[in-house]
Amino acid sequence: MAGEAASTLGLSMAVLAESPTDAACDVAAEVIVGSPHVEGALRSLAERCDVVTFDHELVDLSLITLLASEGVRIHPGADTLALAVDKVHMRAVFVGAGIPVPAHAVLDLAHLDQSGMEDVLTSFGREHGWPLVLKAARGGYDGKGVWPADDLAQARAVLAPLTGHVLVEEHVEIEAEVAVMVARRPSGETVSWPAVETAQVGGVCREVLVPGRLPAAVVEEAAELGRHVADLAGAAGVMAVELFLTSEGLMVNEIATRPHNSGHWTIEGAITSQFENHLRAVLDLPLGATRPSHPQVASVNVFGGASGADPAGLLPHGLAIEGAHVHLYGKGARPGRKLGHVTVCGGDPEDVRARAWKAALALGSPRPDALSLPDGVA
Amino acid sequence: MAGEAASTLGLSMAVLAESPTDAACDVAAEVIVGSPHVEGALRSLAERCDVVTFDHELVDLSLITLLASEGVRIHPGADTLALAVDKVHMRAVFVGAGIPVPAHAVLDLAHLDQSGMEDVLTSFGREHGWPLVLKAARGGYDGKGVWPADDLAQARAVLAPLTGHVLVEEHVEIEAEVAVMVARRPSGETVSWPAVETAQVGGVCREVLVPGRLPAAVVEEAAELGRHVADLAGAAGVMAVELFLTSEGLMVNEIATRPHNSGHWTIEGAITSQFENHLRAVLDLPLGATRPSHPQVASVNVFGGASGADPAGLLPHGLAIEGAHVHLYGKGARPGRKLGHVTVCGGDPEDVRARAWKAALALGSPRPDALSLPDGVA
Repeated sequence: MAGEAASTLGLSMAVLAESPTDAACDVAAEVIVGSPHVEGALRSLAERCDVVTFDHELVDLSLITLLASEGVRIHPGADTLALAVDKVHMRAVFVGAGIPVPAHAVLDLAHLDQSGMEDVLTSFGREHGWPLVLKAARGGYDGKGVWPADDLAQARAVLAPLTGHVLVEEHVEIEAEVAVMVARRPSGETVSWPAVETAQVGGVCREVLVPGRLPAAVVEEAAELGRHVADLAGAAGVMAVELFLTSEGLMVNEIATRPHNSGHWTIEGAITSQFENHLRAVLDLPLGATRPSHPQVASVNVFGGASGADPAGLLPHGLAIEGAHVHLYGKGARPGRKLGHVTVCGGDPEDVRARAWKAALALGSPRPDALSLPDGVA
Repeated sequence: MAGEAASTLGLSMAVLAESPTDAACDVAAEVIVGSPHVEGALRSLAERCDVVTFDHELVDLSLITLLASEGVRIHPGADTLALAVDKVHMRAVFVGAGIPVPAHAVLDLAHLDQSGMEDVLTSFGREHGWPLVLKAARGGYDGKGVWPADDLAQARAVLAPLTGHVLVEEHVEIEAEVAVMVARRPSGETVSWPAVETAQVGGVCREVLVPGRLPAAVVEEAAELGRHVADLAGAAGVMAVELFLTSEGLMVNEIATRPHNSGHWTIEGAITSQFENHLRAVLDLPLGATRPSHPQVASVNVFGGASGADPAGLLPHGLAIEGAHVHLYGKGARPGRKLGHVTVCGGDPEDVRARAWKAALALGSPRPDALSLPDGVA
């Protein structure tokens, strides 16, 4: 999707891809096959580019730092990426800046013996109650690296195979999950899109509603928090800030320092998409307007169904839904894999949500049991 | 732009390009370098594709017919393309179907001697008045292949180097130039976008206004004419029908059997763009909604300025205009070459037109003397 935005602006994109069959290769002017963890591959990319950016955070910060020190323009930079790469670091920085986050403790598994670890868990559980949530500091995404634990025995079992740092976090009673996308230029100009309501099942985003059921005051507060986080992170590019709405207000859960699933709706639903503003931001070009182009937008993810059928074969069904903007990512179909999304814009929240779901299901995406779907969605 | 739409739908696009530096190559999964007039090159493309389509009409109809006879899916087909390739054929078919076109006669230069030619011109001039307009039956685009002639001497000079068929046409007093984009599936489903007002300078489109100053009745009549033409042409894909609005109503001037400049506004200004509906149509997939997403849309072309500066270097200025959707085509900058366009959507016709022009001029596009620009455009 970033490649589509690059093409629009007449920018030429080179990608560093793990495999020549990666979907991004189809819209790249140049493809370098290699790993971002290999210095030679990253250098190869940097030599071809005016600016290097990312579509995930699974990067090697020391390599980024090294290249940046040699004058390579890399946005976001290592300091910003570090916040997204390491949840323990992120929580510490946010607490220091007065940004609300869930109550948490840190387990340093390399330096704690079994009883030390159990002391932390027991004392945290006493203060904040069980169940609690364990999160690997690094490497998690889409619900991976996050484990609820009902009691000490479960926590012990989760931790047994882990190394490094692990966050111990309170189980937050959530009224809604909220996300806000922010775009920030290296020179500091910052804009945000309206906050959205997201629905997650098993830690994976299923739908994004704009503005969903969110009260205007929450939308406003989320935007302020988002811009605060982006400034604090020294973001360059777009950034997703995922928030929990609780009875006590908003708190920051996760961040992503790149275009994000919760911002896919902006392609058709806002004047400027997150992808175009990401490119504008990393190139330090003026940012585009972020206001929605429609009063209501719903975006629903398309996952591989149990049959393993490719949604591309179901396009006649998905495209038959009026106003459905179908995005397929060209990835190989596997049950449960995120293969695309559908966005519908309009005036009525139930109507746009229903049409987006109809199209996603028509494309073979499985019906999520844990989510109540709109009336009339078969 | 078709490549961007293909990527969105998860379709893989192969292009047959004259040069590996053609802009379309950057967003194509596969590039075949060659000419569409060379059988081997076209076969090479066809072998890789489920369906073959075009972004211009400068094709070899006999090759298309040959491949189609062997079962290659080519949309639009040779019969449709023939109308766009040959203006004499197009006029004859339209006259036969009762579609209003300018009064015209045909000069067959291979079979007319000088006095026969002058007889036709003199008698046409007597009936319809001078000046008249001469148009090469084949090969013209963007004002090329069209010559006004004030008198017999000028007409003689124009015709001297020409061969083949030439249209002799009345000079039409135009109240407005109108275009309508239609999308049609091979199975017959047809949709049209709202008709637009275009402004041409020297036969080249400078701006597209939606709906511009066009009365609702004209917009409606243009859509009907457009659908009639698309049905008559057996179109598969999108089609542009360019019309003259005269004191006596609408008449068809030109057609293009592909995505067209007068439909670029649909990328941001309509629910489904001409490019996505072109792909849907040639794949015989359900067509997307064509209603505008904003009450007013203005799209202004960006041409190379006298300095030969690349508009890419002026992006900071163009993108600074609020709401400006900048499209650069990645083509080498040359004075007068069409290098991109800018679309602005909104509620006020003067406002969107002014912003689109501001951005186009900021990108280095020259100010057209023959067009009155909105107030406040520097």
